[in-house]
Amino acid sequence: MPLRNPAEMQAWVESIDARARSRLGLGRVADYIPALARQEADRFGIALCTNDGQVYAAGDARESFSIQSISKVFLLTLSLRVFGNALWERVGLNPSGMPFNSLTQLEAERGKPRNPFINAGAIVVTDHLVSAFATPSQYLQDVARRLSGDTTVLIDREVLESEWQHRSRNAAMAYLMKAFGNIANEVDDVLYAYFACCALGMSCVDLAVAFNYLAASGYSRQANKQIVEAELARKINSILFTSGMYDAAGEFAYRVGLPAKSGVGGGILAVVPGRFTVCAWSPALDDNGNSVAAQYALELLAEELG
Amino acid sequence: MPLRNPAEMQAWVESIDARARSRLGLGRVADYIPALARQEADRFGIALCTNDGQVYAAGDARESFSIQSISKVFLLTLSLRVFGNALWERVGLNPSGMPFNSLTQLEAERGKPRNPFINAGAIVVTDHLVSAFATPSQYLQDVARRLSGDTTVLIDREVLESEWQHRSRNAAMAYLMKAFGNIANEVDDVLYAYFACCALGMSCVDLAVAFNYLAASGYSRQANKQIVEAELARKINSILFTSGMYDAAGEFAYRVGLPAKSGVGGGILAVVPGRFTVCAWSPALDDNGNSVAAQYALELLAEELG
Amino acid sequence: MPLRNPAEMQAWVESIDARARSRLGLGRVADYIPALARQEADRFGIALCTNDGQVYAAGDARESFSIQSISKVFLLTLSLRVFGNALWERVGLNPSGMPFNSLTQLEAERGKPRNPFINAGAIVVTDHLVSAFATPSQYLQDVARRLSGDTTVLIDREVLESEWQHRSRNAAMAYLMKAFGNIANEVDDVLYAYFACCALGMSCVDLAVAFNYLAASGYSRQANKQIVEAELARKINSILFTSGMYDAAGEFAYRVGLPAKSGVGGGILAVVPGRFTVCAWSPALDDNGNSVAAQYALELLAEELG
Amino acid sequence: MPLRNPAEMQAWVESIDARARSRLGLGRVADYIPALARQEADRFGIALCTNDGQVYAAGDARESFSIQSISKVFLLTLSLRVFGNALWERVGLNPSGMPFNSLTQLEAERGKPRNPFINAGAIVVTDHLVSAFATPSQYLQDVARRLSGDTTVLIDREVLESEWQHRSRNAAMAYLMKAFGNIANEVDDVLYAYFACCALGMSCVDLAVAFNYLAASGYSRQANKQIVEAELARKINSILFTSGMYDAAGEFAYRVGLPAKSGVGGGILAVVPGRFTVCAWSPALDDNGNSVAAQYALELLAEELG
Repeated sequence: MPLRNPAEMQAWVESIDARARSRLGLGRVADYIPALARQEADRFGIALCTNDGQVYAAGDARESFSIQSISKVFLLTLSLRVFGNALWERVGLNPSGMPFNSLTQLEAERGKPRNPFINAGAIVVTDHLVSAFATPSQYLQDVARRLSGDTTVLIDREVLESEWQHRSRNAAMAYLMKAFGNIANEVDDVLYAYFACCALGMSCVDLAVAFNYLAASGYSRQANKQIVEAELARKINSILFTSGMYDAAGEFAYRVGLPAKSGVGGGILAVVPGRFTVCAWSPALDDNGNSVAAQYALELLAEELG
Repeated sequence: MPLRNPAEMQAWVESIDARARSRLGLGRVADYIPALARQEADRFGIALCTNDGQVYAAGDARESFSIQSISKVFLLTLSLRVFGNALWERVGLNPSGMPFNSLTQLEAERGKPRNPFINAGAIVVTDHLVSAFATPSQYLQDVARRLSGDTTVLIDREVLESEWQHRSRNAAMAYLMKAFGNIANEVDDVLYAYFACCALGMSCVDLAVAFNYLAASGYSRQANKQIVEAELARKINSILFTSGMYDAAGEFAYRVGLPAKSGVGGGILAVVPGRFTVCAWSPALDDNGNSVAAQYALELLAEELG
Repeated sequence: MPLRNPAEMQAWVESIDARARSRLGLGRVADYIPALARQEADRFGIALCTNDGQVYAAGDARESFSIQSISKVFLLTLSLRVFGNALWERVGLNPSGMPFNSLTQLEAERGKPRNPFINAGAIVVTDHLVSAFATPSQYLQDVARRLSGDTTVLIDREVLESEWQHRSRNAAMAYLMKAFGNIANEVDDVLYAYFACCALGMSCVDLAVAFNYLAASGYSRQANKQIVEAELARKINSILFTSGMYDAAGEFAYRVGLPAKSGVGGGILAVVPGRFTVCAWSPALDDNGNSVAAQYALELLAEELG
Repeated sequence: MPLRNPAEMQAWVESIDARARSRLGLGRVADYIPALARQEADRFGIALCTNDGQVYAAGDARESFSIQSISKVFLLTLSLRVFGNALWERVGLNPSGMPFNSLTQLEAERGKPRNPFINAGAIVVTDHLVSAFATPSQYLQDVARRLSGDTTVLIDREVLESEWQHRSRNAAMAYLMKAFGNIANEVDDVLYAYFACCALGMSCVDLAVAFNYLAASGYSRQANKQIVEAELARKINSILFTSGMYDAAGEFAYRVGLPAKSGVGGGILAVVPGRFTVCAWSPALDDNGNSVAAQYALELLAEELG
């Protein structure tokens, strides 16, 4: 597929949108909290942000959705900026090999989560930020606005309250880590900040723009700022490659071969280093918790990208 | 050893006391909470209560200590009285084969604890009682007073607060069970009631008298009341035999061969069905969390009982 | 139920037989090897052997069946006679809490099986006997004949070959233990001897008579010999109580309250210390691998025994 | 670092060799079999093979060593050529998150190994090849010769026999998979072929040349043949990235960021897609079983490659 100019790029994105919609009807919308369960299953959007700042979008690409676990990439980036490699004393770097909310491994490994993209790992990362910032979720909302250039980005209070009401499993993980000395703050404070970040509402366009620094050697054109050093951007992409797609990281790497992060809101962010970021969204998920249509869109994209 | 009359019985108990003290100096006092850590390691007491109401005591047998997990026998008894076999829908009956505070098994078995004598099981039992009674720990304190005949039996507030401060692992278990729908009430309420029961202060004499119904076909001579039916007393003894001594249930059954329940306060209650209950206490514990000297005392007792 | 004389005893055993047959039709015959799968599901037998040598039998009590895991009690007895407590350096004494053929626990505990009544434990016990005897399964057959007084007791070659053909999981366990240094002999030799013992064909009457030493303080009236010391008989009964019924040890202890050992051939041997042994048999099993009708028979027996 | 011409490339490789030798003295030579234990710890070699066929080598780069788990990449390539995606019905594609020889996960996942680069996975792959080829290890030796252009490549019989003698843990895994129906052939035949492949002796130069097809879109310049399609080469690299470095895949991806496969002989093969393959070797390993000096060499290489 020739991608020589903006018109061809836009046509390509629209063509992926058209074909990915064939997968609508498959999978199931996340239903563990009511605020997510009521999402319409037949939505699909895709947006691509090139390193020179062009945005190509199709379908419901400007519709806000709950970014959920994609927020873990924000959390990790901020934490690495503040704490550097000290973070890795409390969180591992290896694939988990177990469901994203498993307690078994956490107990066997004495409260040190395998990586920052499983829930336990992101909760430890949040604990760092709760130590560092007075209002960590407010701060994260500001960062999301600056990086995306969208001043309407907002923590969805209804989603946040719903997550809080259904916090039992995450609370179990947080208390287990605290029992091993790996949570410094009050569990309730850490969880509330963690859920607030998950509850950020952003669109495909917002996310593709906001995370473009991962494709652009750490530099955000939107914010006009080096967010992380080039080497660190490369490293974050490596963790995304090995651990970004829950249990299916290896399968996704095999089929698609791009660093990516998925959320149960139905979004998937992927990085093509040196070229662009792309975000696809569709609410219905497969058994691993990854959006069916968004995965398919990224498969088409990777295949045609060569 | 002839045990034909009260004098011989008393001599026997004193002789066990004298010999068990040879084990003082071995093991370690529980130190996970300060209120327990400050117990003196060189205390030892033993009391025996026969089914006809005689009490034989030696050493520090009238000193109050934190009954900790021995309270699980009270909790189970009360819950079976109120809920009968419905209890077994939410708690299992089989040995755990894992440490008393493991989350791995609890996760694998979808929040249903193996038995009522591991922490998770006792927390579910407490949840039942929180549903049934307005002030469950107050009620348990009253029951302990009536069954022991000791009106000074008291929940130790310092121990209770200390347990609460160090609740992380128990909170992790409780939240995990709640995630699986096996805790009906607020986790904090259930844990507080659970810790209150653990924090009951009772002496060897108190415990031997209070639990005599387990040796006497369910009848408490002290309270002049059938606490549970004879068949149920036999059944509780069976669970004590298979699951009463933490991880070491099988070894204790092999060496001693009596239904028994141990607590990290250093107490061990044992039952000789049809004859008597016995409680030995000494704070220093082995790696399984069972009192070294109290175990040895019960070993001597079982051997000489034939 | 009055059990004052032989006629009343015989009537009682026949009454249990009649009532237990109401459970025929429930459960499933073991089908992991063809030689067991072809057993008829509607057979039931029960035999009781008192410590004074009386035998009361009903139903198919004199029919030979594959004793399977009940042979583990022979293996343990012989091994304790030869090696004494040294056995416990290589096998544990505690309930497993996991399925009888689990490798997970075996790996976590570095090749030391939890107890001698799970497969891995019995394989270690057999390894001991392979070290001690030139023809261990021949020796076990001789022992079974002497203790039961039935000179026709035989290793069933068809069952043995069938077990050998389907040895994969047991081979996995044996090799894992060998990897940890807990199998001294060639794995194939140990497994073959182990399967030969499992393949012994005996009847309810044979088993009740042969194991009466467990009820009679270690003395076999049939063989006119002290098989193990009284204290050791008591200890074997304790392991039967905590670990004899696969995963359901605790439930069986709760409901029935007798030391017992089950086999997938459908037999269950139980001990009433000081009085008698009893063996019930019916091929159809529940999900835990215990005979449905035989369990029910023992439940009736225990209840009416008081 | 400018890499504009052969002289600069050679200087670079020599400079890496010089610096990596600073790590000699750290780590431990594999000692689970005598034939490996006697390797000298202070050897180091590195070879780089560019897609246009140039080879740059330094240190002990032409010394033959036991390739061990690097053979898993040959096995996977051959199996994918013969069976295509049908392979993935019997082996997974995701990181394991557990030690390379764990049985726990294998049992939990009913005999389907997580990926083809843990031992269990490679044994299943070998089982495929045993079904397909009369003399699979002979065939693999031929392939290794053709791809490396080195006709002296040989299966080391002493290493092979030593692996066979110490096969217990691998035998446990193979029998467990056979119990779940995931091994078609006799376990002994499969293991022998598997160990033969592990026992191939090759040098850094041999390996860099032989695996260059992974850097060159599936084409082997040495063999003048398209070994696998470009897309499949990309996919194999993805599995190497997520699962090629045992437990440390994520850490290696973070630090080095290249697809790589390690062997306990001390070799590590890495791929720079579109440019070259590189193989470093030094016998002393870290706790994850990866060569200390070879890892460091690849870290330097990746850093300076940019």
